[in-house]
Amino acid sequence: MRAVVITEPGPPDVLQLRDVPDPLPGPGEVVIEVTAAAVNRADLMQRQGHYPPPPGASPYPGMECSGQIAVLGEGVTDRVVGEPVCALLSGGGYAERVAVPVGQLMPVPTGMSLLEAGGLPEVTCTVWSMVFQRGGLRPGESLLVHGGSSGIGTMAIQLAKRHGARVFTTVGTDRKAEFCRELGADVVINYRTEDFADRIRAEAPNGIDVILDNMGATYLPGNVSVLARDGRLVVLGLQGGTRGELDLGALLVKRATVTAASLRARSLEAKAQIVSATVEAVWPDLESGVVRLVVDRILPLEDAAEAHRLLESSTHMGKVLLQVR
Amino acid sequence: MRAVVITEPGPPDVLQLRDVPDPLPGPGEVVIEVTAAAVNRADLMQRQGHYPPPPGASPYPGMECSGQIAVLGEGVTDRVVGEPVCALLSGGGYAERVAVPVGQLMPVPTGMSLLEAGGLPEVTCTVWSMVFQRGGLRPGESLLVHGGSSGIGTMAIQLAKRHGARVFTTVGTDRKAEFCRELGADVVINYRTEDFADRIRAEAPNGIDVILDNMGATYLPGNVSVLARDGRLVVLGLQGGTRGELDLGALLVKRATVTAASLRARSLEAKAQIVSATVEAVWPDLESGVVRLVVDRILPLEDAAEAHRLLESSTHMGKVLLQVR
Repeated sequence: MRAVVITEPGPPDVLQLRDVPDPLPGPGEVVIEVTAAAVNRADLMQRQGHYPPPPGASPYPGMECSGQIAVLGEGVTDRVVGEPVCALLSGGGYAERVAVPVGQLMPVPTGMSLLEAGGLPEVTCTVWSMVFQRGGLRPGESLLVHGGSSGIGTMAIQLAKRHGARVFTTVGTDRKAEFCRELGADVVINYRTEDFADRIRAEAPNGIDVILDNMGATYLPGNVSVLARDGRLVVLGLQGGTRGELDLGALLVKRATVTAASLRARSLEAKAQIVSATVEAVWPDLESGVVRLVVDRILPLEDAAEAHRLLESSTHMGKVLLQVR
Repeated sequence: MRAVVITEPGPPDVLQLRDVPDPLPGPGEVVIEVTAAAVNRADLMQRQGHYPPPPGASPYPGMECSGQIAVLGEGVTDRVVGEPVCALLSGGGYAERVAVPVGQLMPVPTGMSLLEAGGLPEVTCTVWSMVFQRGGLRPGESLLVHGGSSGIGTMAIQLAKRHGARVFTTVGTDRKAEFCRELGADVVINYRTEDFADRIRAEAPNGIDVILDNMGATYLPGNVSVLARDGRLVVLGLQGGTRGELDLGALLVKRATVTAASLRARSLEAKAQIVSATVEAVWPDLESGVVRLVVDRILPLEDAAEAHRLLESSTHMGKVLLQVR
């Protein structure tokens, strides 16, 4: 099969489409004939050599895909060849075929194309597990999501509104701000023209209940300063560095919590649990149209380097997909 | 009545026994005729002017006591005058009488003296709410508690062992180390002679599931470095400072959580819930003798300054009580 290979750690051009051996399904796995993969920031880090795939995972990038089941592994009895699916992967989505444990398969929502479904698993599983499971966001509470126009951001805004939260978000351009407002965000802050923490103190004097953060160190003081009593800061990315100053005095007075997590390194059981909870919670809203996947553009698989440059430029809004067939 | 008054912020000698007006019970409160109060580190901070009592609380120090109900406030129908109780207070324990909401009353465990029960509420409610509720310690997991010979420490060691955890603790002297071993601690580390994080890496390569910390900033890097996957660091004191460096990269890889809280500033409802859960969970073990309150010594109320000096010297092990009558 053909797959996008990271020839060496480096800039986008190290991504090369190559002929590689087909993957074989292990026990409890299926092989998917990939229709589309999607691009995530973690893929960029993996390309640069900063985020090696976990043991046993495919060496090729790509943490989600859609397609049709092509091969059933040993012990897989409740799946059929030809079945359309999308899947959360530990790697290997930028390829014509990929092996994946059945616990990470998700159905294609009714009314959605198989192509676009390739961009669903990461944003839905991440937002559901981080904002609602780990963060415990409840109706009537407030959510601040940084980077509201990202794939994660666009899904977080919609799901939080759907579940009765007041939603704050930060963006870097007026065009992104307008887009986030259309998605339902109540307060949109352009971090290039105003200090997000100052603005939030003005808009929400009691603070924010749940913050979903992709910046890490640089935003840690500001995030902690705007947390509400019993607030939860959930960190899923470290684009602003890894080591930051934590004001434990503020944390103690607020009885607040700082937690960080990613999906990729979890056990098979944990991933299967997240996938199943996410489908149960989010798929009905995708099928009714209350919540939609925002796709910025779809590029052919051979343009993976171009897709990475696009993510690095941060000019996109929503998901960037790679069409494999 | 007589109460210990903080005449001005300062050293222990600013504590003076004075005649003050009797407290009156508000609706839903009772007045307790105090038998014993206990000394907590928060009292020392309050004496120094760093920890003002919350709005509406007594201005006198003392966050727990035992005694007999002397007066019933409006709407209190399920209590009787003369009933022996102990109670979690927002302040005012260093006095002959104190008013307290009924939700913060606890029964005196069968087999325990009314005098010693004055030292139960803070250690039991703190350990239950922080280690088991907030920290979520489960059987088979590990607990690290810093300051194992403190009131909190001695209760945390015993309750964690009782609930099937492996217990690590730090202490500052060999005498305290021996005492913590007798209480059931599996690994006791003298922090003056060895680095606690190095020792824990050697003893528990997979890390610690729950850490109960009273040091704050100075221990933050070491604590985070020894957390296990899905580990929880619960900070309840800041004796080592408030602002520390947090390694969010480590937190993310481990999917770990840092949280901080104290009991005092919580709502009446939250306190009542903690008190009732604590009595349900801990009182049977106190009554059967599986878990015991460690009392270092009992001083007369007029020696409150001496009691504060004792806590500041850190030579005590377990609770220091003030006998009022």
